[in-house]
Amino acid sequence: MRILDIIEKKRDGIELDKDEIYRFIESVSKERVPSYQIAAFLMAAYIKGLSRRETYYLTDAMVASGETIVMDKFSDFTVDKHSTGGVGDKISLIVGPILASLGIPILKMSGRGLGFTGGTLDKLESIPGFRTQLSKEEILRQGKKIQLVLCAQTAKIASADKILYHLRDVTGTIDSIPLIASSIMSKKLAIENDGLVIDLKVGNGAFIHDKEQALLLADTMSYIGEKHGRKVTIVLSSMNEPLGRAIGNSIEIEESLQVLSNKTDGDLLDLSVALAAEALLLKYPDASLDELKLKSRNVIRSGQALETFISMVQSQGGSLEQFYESLKHNCIETIEILSSEDGYVQSIDALTIGKLSLLAGAGRETKEDSINHHAGVYLNKISGEKVNKGDTILTIYLSNTKNRDLCTKIAESAYRINTKIPDKNNIIIDIIRGK
Amino acid sequence: MRILDIIEKKRDGIELDKDEIYRFIESVSKERVPSYQIAAFLMAAYIKGLSRRETYYLTDAMVASGETIVMDKFSDFTVDKHSTGGVGDKISLIVGPILASLGIPILKMSGRGLGFTGGTLDKLESIPGFRTQLSKEEILRQGKKIQLVLCAQTAKIASADKILYHLRDVTGTIDSIPLIASSIMSKKLAIENDGLVIDLKVGNGAFIHDKEQALLLADTMSYIGEKHGRKVTIVLSSMNEPLGRAIGNSIEIEESLQVLSNKTDGDLLDLSVALAAEALLLKYPDASLDELKLKSRNVIRSGQALETFISMVQSQGGSLEQFYESLKHNCIETIEILSSEDGYVQSIDALTIGKLSLLAGAGRETKEDSINHHAGVYLNKISGEKVNKGDTILTIYLSNTKNRDLCTKIAESAYRINTKIPDKNNIIIDIIRGK
Repeated sequence: MRILDIIEKKRDGIELDKDEIYRFIESVSKERVPSYQIAAFLMAAYIKGLSRRETYYLTDAMVASGETIVMDKFSDFTVDKHSTGGVGDKISLIVGPILASLGIPILKMSGRGLGFTGGTLDKLESIPGFRTQLSKEEILRQGKKIQLVLCAQTAKIASADKILYHLRDVTGTIDSIPLIASSIMSKKLAIENDGLVIDLKVGNGAFIHDKEQALLLADTMSYIGEKHGRKVTIVLSSMNEPLGRAIGNSIEIEESLQVLSNKTDGDLLDLSVALAAEALLLKYPDASLDELKLKSRNVIRSGQALETFISMVQSQGGSLEQFYESLKHNCIETIEILSSEDGYVQSIDALTIGKLSLLAGAGRETKEDSINHHAGVYLNKISGEKVNKGDTILTIYLSNTKNRDLCTKIAESAYRINTKIPDKNNIIIDIIRGK
Repeated sequence: MRILDIIEKKRDGIELDKDEIYRFIESVSKERVPSYQIAAFLMAAYIKGLSRRETYYLTDAMVASGETIVMDKFSDFTVDKHSTGGVGDKISLIVGPILASLGIPILKMSGRGLGFTGGTLDKLESIPGFRTQLSKEEILRQGKKIQLVLCAQTAKIASADKILYHLRDVTGTIDSIPLIASSIMSKKLAIENDGLVIDLKVGNGAFIHDKEQALLLADTMSYIGEKHGRKVTIVLSSMNEPLGRAIGNSIEIEESLQVLSNKTDGDLLDLSVALAAEALLLKYPDASLDELKLKSRNVIRSGQALETFISMVQSQGGSLEQFYESLKHNCIETIEILSSEDGYVQSIDALTIGKLSLLAGAGRETKEDSINHHAGVYLNKISGEKVNKGDTILTIYLSNTKNRDLCTKIAESAYRINTKIPDKNNIIIDIIRGK
């Protein structure tokens, strides 16, 4: 069985068997397949599709291509929470402390993302002193003590996925449901948990734009997870508008702290509580969902979740005092965008705000780019809120003054303001729970 | 317009415009497109297809990517003859002398082929002393004097095609009609001739297996050629059986000399005469085809074609005397395959004989392989001929004695012998002439 035979079979739309997929992925991870052959395979898979079975084997082969991390020393029931990514998404910083406070240990090892803002690691590193590089012993000790660790990836998991992912990016083969599902799930399955809650973002600020596609992806991921013995719940949440008011790094930490301090509500809190409740439901399938939501809400009200977050920050060397100091003295240029009319905010375009945040200096366009922890966008007015002419609707924290005019122009195009009070859209679109 | 946008457009099955195709091919030829992006494009083009317009622009862009060779110093009407390649195909060695003898100068610059036997260059180099590397001045001088030059490619024509062709070979994107058509035609159009006769081989010993595919390819090539102002005739000829009796290098030269000496007839002569007549018809569109066939046949009968061939050999430094000597003293191992039954040869499988010839040492599997000029296969009995049990049906000239047993086994599987007299199949399947 040559690699070329496997490519040709997929090209002709014939289902590959387990051995062929394993052979291909193993050869990829051992760097025995030249990139042009991987690219040809990816394009064939993109156009001809992969069956559920093929997608499962592909995922499984990618898990086997790297290290796996066993979490059973940690707790009798562990849950992983994953987000497919969106503008202003700081949910992990809130759900983590909630679940840890309720006895579900959360150990999240993240990569450093590309995109509109930094990844969770970048956000946390805006806290002075915060260390994301922990040893295995430190992770284990902190996990047992605080039940919450947010740190950098130590192991080389799903090696083949890394190779495939980079090539998909440059060969026009990103938007394929089977390839997306296997990429996400291989990284999740390589870390052994009992349950998995996926926040699948849908909208123009996410890479999945419509519900139909999202349901297909959810179905595929559920199938893969459950065939792997994982309990999987997938929450489809709206990403047509940014989540919360802050988009950036330090300002997202600040907003998360506000939520954890019970000082703010809205979609960000609602979605966090819903996701936490779904994770709890995986551990306690006979409990009432409303009760689990209330429990999740209550650990915020009681200050317990905030306390857990603070303990984690301290344990990983960070200082929130210095963090708040740094917000006051960050010397970053501020641009306020004012409303040119009276009315209500009808919508704020997530993709536009994401691009604005990237331009302002909060995210990376290439892996080599550096980010500014204080750069970002703050939405002074969000959808449904009343504005008067001259009110500040949005603030840009700009690290790259070269982009000043472009940023102002983009910011102005993001808002739709109208005299009528808009309908409130539910942040949660659908929830797909395993059998 | 980024390369990625072009790939994605083709991936989605949208027709590319002229600028996009030129942009892509120009970037490829300047080595600005990484091989994985070319591979992704090729797979998308393979699966989604290319329209006639796209194929024309692709061809045109590939012509523009390399040098072009102008032939107008040579004659007022030049014709190029091309074969898509098959087992035992030595037609160029016969058609060239016929046309040159009838006032149509033939200057063929060939590459060194991969395949069942060597290319035309390898065959000619089995003539001791024969030089295939000629200077431009030598080509011009000999062309004017003898009207026949068969030599190695000097210019870098269709540079982009070379890159695409190598990648198609390793990415499962060979068998695409538009990609085949543009590859062949870009190399033909880069050498400026007035007419073009293509011998399009159809059958299991060719890369096109059925007539339907062949007609599609012919239609595409005609369209491209004629849009380029070239008069194009495409002859579909059968390649289910080897052409003639000799498959190799020196033995193909020997067989060609026999045809030119009027010592043998059959499919090889018939097809050569038909192709020559088609080339003449391009120059003399008002002539009768039968008359042109007779003319072509007569320059063989009169010995004029043989004389032209001998003049070319001498002019390029070769010695036919030494050639015939070398056939007698080549020390190559000979295996005779005997018939195990009485009857008539029903068919000889071209692909099997091709593989046998390659194994015997007559062809190259990789560019680095060396060939043995005397290796090959001789068909003592061909289709329609009577055999008795114990008759030699096939002779293997073996340079690689390691393959002795395998060669014997393969050789025995190539023949179908039966008691009934088989029907005679016409070597010419169809002829597509331009308007």
